[in-house]
Amino acid sequence: MTQKRILIVGGVAGGASCAARSRRLSEEAEIVIFERGSFVSFANCGLPYYVGNVIAEEKKLLVATTDLFKQRFNIEVRIKNEVLSIDRQNKKITVKNLTTNEIYQERYDALVLAPGASPIRPPLPGIDLPGIFALRTIPDSRRIRDWIAERQVKQAVVVGGGFIGLEMTENLVHRGIAVTLLEMTSQVIPILDREMVIPVQERLRAHGVQLCLEKEVTQFEQQENNILVSTRSGNRYPAQLVIIALGVRPESKLAIEAGLEIGDKGGIRVNEQMRTSDESIWAVGDAVEVRDYVTKEWTLIALAGPANRQGRIAADAIAGRSSTFRGVQGTAVCGIFGLTVANTGASEKTLKRLKMPYEKICLHPGHHVSYFPGAKPIDLKLLFSPKDGRILGAQAVGEEGVEKRIDVISMAIQRHSTVFDLEEAELCYAPQFGAAKDPVNFAGMIAANALRGDAPIAQWDGSDLTESVLVDVREVGEFEAGHVPGAINVPLSQLRDRLHELPKDKKILVYCQVGQRAYYATRILRLNGFNASNLTGGYKTWKSY
Amino acid sequence: MTQKRILIVGGVAGGASCAARSRRLSEEAEIVIFERGSFVSFANCGLPYYVGNVIAEEKKLLVATTDLFKQRFNIEVRIKNEVLSIDRQNKKITVKNLTTNEIYQERYDALVLAPGASPIRPPLPGIDLPGIFALRTIPDSRRIRDWIAERQVKQAVVVGGGFIGLEMTENLVHRGIAVTLLEMTSQVIPILDREMVIPVQERLRAHGVQLCLEKEVTQFEQQENNILVSTRSGNRYPAQLVIIALGVRPESKLAIEAGLEIGDKGGIRVNEQMRTSDESIWAVGDAVEVRDYVTKEWTLIALAGPANRQGRIAADAIAGRSSTFRGVQGTAVCGIFGLTVANTGASEKTLKRLKMPYEKICLHPGHHVSYFPGAKPIDLKLLFSPKDGRILGAQAVGEEGVEKRIDVISMAIQRHSTVFDLEEAELCYAPQFGAAKDPVNFAGMIAANALRGDAPIAQWDGSDLTESVLVDVREVGEFEAGHVPGAINVPLSQLRDRLHELPKDKKILVYCQVGQRAYYATRILRLNGFNASNLTGGYKTWKSY
Repeated sequence: MTQKRILIVGGVAGGASCAARSRRLSEEAEIVIFERGSFVSFANCGLPYYVGNVIAEEKKLLVATTDLFKQRFNIEVRIKNEVLSIDRQNKKITVKNLTTNEIYQERYDALVLAPGASPIRPPLPGIDLPGIFALRTIPDSRRIRDWIAERQVKQAVVVGGGFIGLEMTENLVHRGIAVTLLEMTSQVIPILDREMVIPVQERLRAHGVQLCLEKEVTQFEQQENNILVSTRSGNRYPAQLVIIALGVRPESKLAIEAGLEIGDKGGIRVNEQMRTSDESIWAVGDAVEVRDYVTKEWTLIALAGPANRQGRIAADAIAGRSSTFRGVQGTAVCGIFGLTVANTGASEKTLKRLKMPYEKICLHPGHHVSYFPGAKPIDLKLLFSPKDGRILGAQAVGEEGVEKRIDVISMAIQRHSTVFDLEEAELCYAPQFGAAKDPVNFAGMIAANALRGDAPIAQWDGSDLTESVLVDVREVGEFEAGHVPGAINVPLSQLRDRLHELPKDKKILVYCQVGQRAYYATRILRLNGFNASNLTGGYKTWKSY
Repeated sequence: MTQKRILIVGGVAGGASCAARSRRLSEEAEIVIFERGSFVSFANCGLPYYVGNVIAEEKKLLVATTDLFKQRFNIEVRIKNEVLSIDRQNKKITVKNLTTNEIYQERYDALVLAPGASPIRPPLPGIDLPGIFALRTIPDSRRIRDWIAERQVKQAVVVGGGFIGLEMTENLVHRGIAVTLLEMTSQVIPILDREMVIPVQERLRAHGVQLCLEKEVTQFEQQENNILVSTRSGNRYPAQLVIIALGVRPESKLAIEAGLEIGDKGGIRVNEQMRTSDESIWAVGDAVEVRDYVTKEWTLIALAGPANRQGRIAADAIAGRSSTFRGVQGTAVCGIFGLTVANTGASEKTLKRLKMPYEKICLHPGHHVSYFPGAKPIDLKLLFSPKDGRILGAQAVGEEGVEKRIDVISMAIQRHSTVFDLEEAELCYAPQFGAAKDPVNFAGMIAANALRGDAPIAQWDGSDLTESVLVDVREVGEFEAGHVPGAINVPLSQLRDRLHELPKDKKILVYCQVGQRAYYATRILRLNGFNASNLTGGYKTWKSY
């Protein structure tokens, strides 16, 4: 066999993984990475923390250097070399050396596109003013650091309340900068369901962040030392620094110009082996569309984990192996001022959009047993199929133990588990780590009780709320301290003696503080012939709507 | 249907769960719990922390009271009532009221035995001396607290280095008491594999614990204010307080005397519905033998999680439902001086004893990416089937994120997953929470690389170690600072140029610090026609043997 030439466009995450694994599969192949930027394989996800000085040294962000690639993997990395075009017919790429401006061609046997995604910069008036930054590369973060130092930034505006916007907000606050966070939709982290991010929004405000929702930015103006950020609603926010964190867009230009198939969402279309519509070209990472593992729809996902896995699979495919990519669950996590918010699988809004049947439950267990000091509540939401109990997605927010529960549920989703499997999960328990019934077990039990018909679940945003009798089964003092309008109070402790006060011909919706007492009440009522359901998550969930 | 009488012997964990669920399944049933002790449904697992004053108030340990059972569940709890015998023929139990000494009988339709287990107290000379305690109940812990206060205990001996022995050690040290820990075997936490507890043993010693292994206690003597604890090896340890933590024995006396079938390990034999050999009698919790989920052998397991699940299943069965218990994985966790050690599934020693084929790998990843401050290493061991990669067990130890990885792998084992599934797991990643390749992914990749034949694994305790060429691929400075006797040093960075120094006709075993560079080296060697394997876990694992 003649020596195979594997050329890789883009040297971070997916591209770097593909290159390294290709070497592990062949000592003979010639492997070259073309990276437009100055760095290969850097820690993208660490950039906000470098801006925030939590990561103090830039060199910490360099996962691997060009020297290491050469020495360890015998892989040539050409940084500051931009691939301009692909000649598919002759299997050649045209490259521009950004240092010398030399333009040259290289022949490939296999070409891997890992160009990533670029920050969305809407074409608004003033978007190119100095002091307005996006964050995607090490030089980006260096420029922001320099700007903060030189201008002694006191006030910043962050545009966009997704994961990166939140991480940037936290890190700017960490540096003593006042932050205004402008989000166009009605919630931060728009990929999550709205009630799950209420604690995040409260936390942001508690840390002095001026959080402004439903604020669409329309223009930027220079005004002395400030940039004035204007919104459609007519507000104006002055700042010395503006961070644009509106998400990313796949870098599919090269692929489009080469005539490769592009998906509806603008990403490069690939098959399960990460192969594009050209059999000699593969694509991986943020630039490709992949299948959502739960919904099966094509999706764009800019996450490091899937990118790495895809890189490995493309390498396998190039080497003639049969590995396939199973799709993405979208498992993600974000830390914000001591709060952790995480998700896996489909959100409720996605399921609604796709008209996929689902049932949902909410619960608020402690991250470990309440009898051990320091228990912190977790708000947990589980989405599952009403047909067979298959888990469709989960979201959680809290101070401790959040990502653990989402990771366990992520593993469960990967293995096509049902809520009945969560009931039976055998998880670590000692007082400081969990509970004999872990939050994951509780979620399974509540869902399973609903599916078995033992304790049907009602929703706070459900249509039956107005036509039903609403019963608050908390104690009198709790009820008097605040309750849902229209509810009557029959404490669980008195319920068996007061059944005659409730109608048998109407639907009864029961709630308590978090759902446990209401579950007991629901069982008592149903066993006594009432048509009772448990309003999921109780008063605590109601308050988040 | 006439009113059913469900009598339950024992009101903690399994018994309490069974009672509460039975009520949720029937409002009519008469449910009575007979509890020999003074408390129902208390937090057993919190007792060491109550002794240690970490949990300051005794009432925190009361998960539910007799009043709550009455009011919430309409369940009668008779504390200080001991069930003396079972008349299976007439479906009656004989009970002694321990307060009045009255003896009476009660009729049952369904009887549930949840008597738990009692601490093992070997019949050694002096075992009943004042100041020698076991810990199983709230009164036990109260007595120990009182003893510590009254005698101003300065020195304690803990006999037994299992989970409870370690938790008691930590809590006594927390109270300023010097602790000598005597363990009969050659390691603490004997259910784990020896190399996994080396960090635990180091941590104990670092916190001033006098840890003495292979010390079998033979007698206790009173000597002035001290108890002298003697061992077979001739040592004598003085102490004002001795804690016996030698594990527990199922309380199967009642079942034995009633002629119920008992398993080989002394636990009550039950079927998948927790039914004993008598069709009107169920048994749950620490007193029963259950199936190990991985090995399928009968086992005794004293854990709260499985006890609760069993209680629910017995209640279901009594109510005519078809729930079954799937067996136990033995998932467990212990915190000791800031270190967490956890396991799920089978240990290597269990697999060896049962002659079940297995493969093992060790790794030492950070609990999150190294570029974010504060990454702590996790020692992780994964056991899997060499045939199909099915995960058989996992153990981990470290300061952070240990129980999370074990919980994820526990879920994977429950769902019959393979190491190939772990490779593909999509887990939470942000710099402070994990890595794009989580430790769970790494474990899967290493194991899968071995099974695919890409990078076979060699074992430090393997038989081929002496007949092979041992190659240390770390850099020269690392090699010179300490290496495995007999190893030659060929740094990974020089390997491609020095292949001619290595023999093609001998087995080559490669190692580095933790296994990653050795993996790269193994691939280079194999692709160049050498018969190379990666010594799992590297120098770090070697040092733990």
